[in-house]
Amino acid sequence: MALFSMDLQNLKDLFIDELRDLYDAENQITEALPKLIEKAKYPQLKSALQEHLEVTRGQIRRLDTIFQQLKEKATGETCKGMKGLIKEGDDMAARDGDASVIDAAIISAAQRVEHYEMAGYGTVRTYADLLGEPDFANLLQQTLDEEKEADKTLTEIAKTINVQAKAA
Amino acid sequence: MALFSMDLQNLKDLFIDELRDLYDAENQITEALPKLIEKAKYPQLKSALQEHLEVTRGQIRRLDTIFQQLKEKATGETCKGMKGLIKEGDDMAARDGDASVIDAAIISAAQRVEHYEMAGYGTVRTYADLLGEPDFANLLQQTLDEEKEADKTLTEIAKTINVQAKAA
Repeated sequence: MALFSMDLQNLKDLFIDELRDLYDAENQITEALPKLIEKAKYPQLKSALQEHLEVTRGQIRRLDTIFQQLKEKATGETCKGMKGLIKEGDDMAARDGDASVIDAAIISAAQRVEHYEMAGYGTVRTYADLLGEPDFANLLQQTLDEEKEADKTLTEIAKTINVQAKAA
Repeated sequence: MALFSMDLQNLKDLFIDELRDLYDAENQITEALPKLIEKAKYPQLKSALQEHLEVTRGQIRRLDTIFQQLKEKATGETCKGMKGLIKEGDDMAARDGDASVIDAAIISAAQRVEHYEMAGYGTVRTYADLLGEPDFANLLQQTLDEEKEADKTLTEIAKTINVQAKAA
């Protein structure tokens, strides 16, 4: 939330506000992921997180495109929701314990992040549709699909890791 | 995260840890919802949030049941993720602007909270299955279903409110 928040007079104001929130969230994720990648032990988890870092950079470029076309600046919001989620993930990854249990904890935290983004992108995609901006809606839908895909990949990886964690 | 976090040696440790995280998250939600209910203008949104407050209390009782059977205390974790999400929702609801736009913003924030819980309960339900605790898995699945239902209800209400917000 910006220090001097603009009034929310109409859906377009809210659309821009939420895009800025997501823009900040994505940038927080690009800063946080390298630490989680380093901490993760299971190679498939490491590579899935690495791949998601690349995907996230592409998602930021999509938001840049939208902001350019709207002639609005992308910055100005701090996504407090993502701040909390990332702090939670960092704390989890820093815990002592069995490596596979820590990997399971990293997946759990990462899936909370994915779910935040699914909610956020679902919302702005709907707003873009209502505002008669099909190109924006299309870009935001692509990101939404990627987030759902990332969540599914983590669920798949968790199947192996959770069994290892159970046997720990 | 507790000040003195226990080691995560196996999946059961992580299961208990995540249940405590959700227990704190649910309690934060019961404290935060009355403010949002007061702030919401659209009657259907007010009543949906009111109903979710009651549902949340039932979800806390389910967690109490699990902790009692595990002979573990329910408290000790602060859910930082939920703290950020609720701060975000409070900030949104406190913004100036058109009432229907603020209602749309409240829905957006509430759906982020629902998605956090969907991720969280999906995870602990899976852990309960793996740990051979079908009764716990069943209780957690009931809550997961309620969260998904609450998310759908908000999406339905948003259809009306977003159109009002667009016309604002």
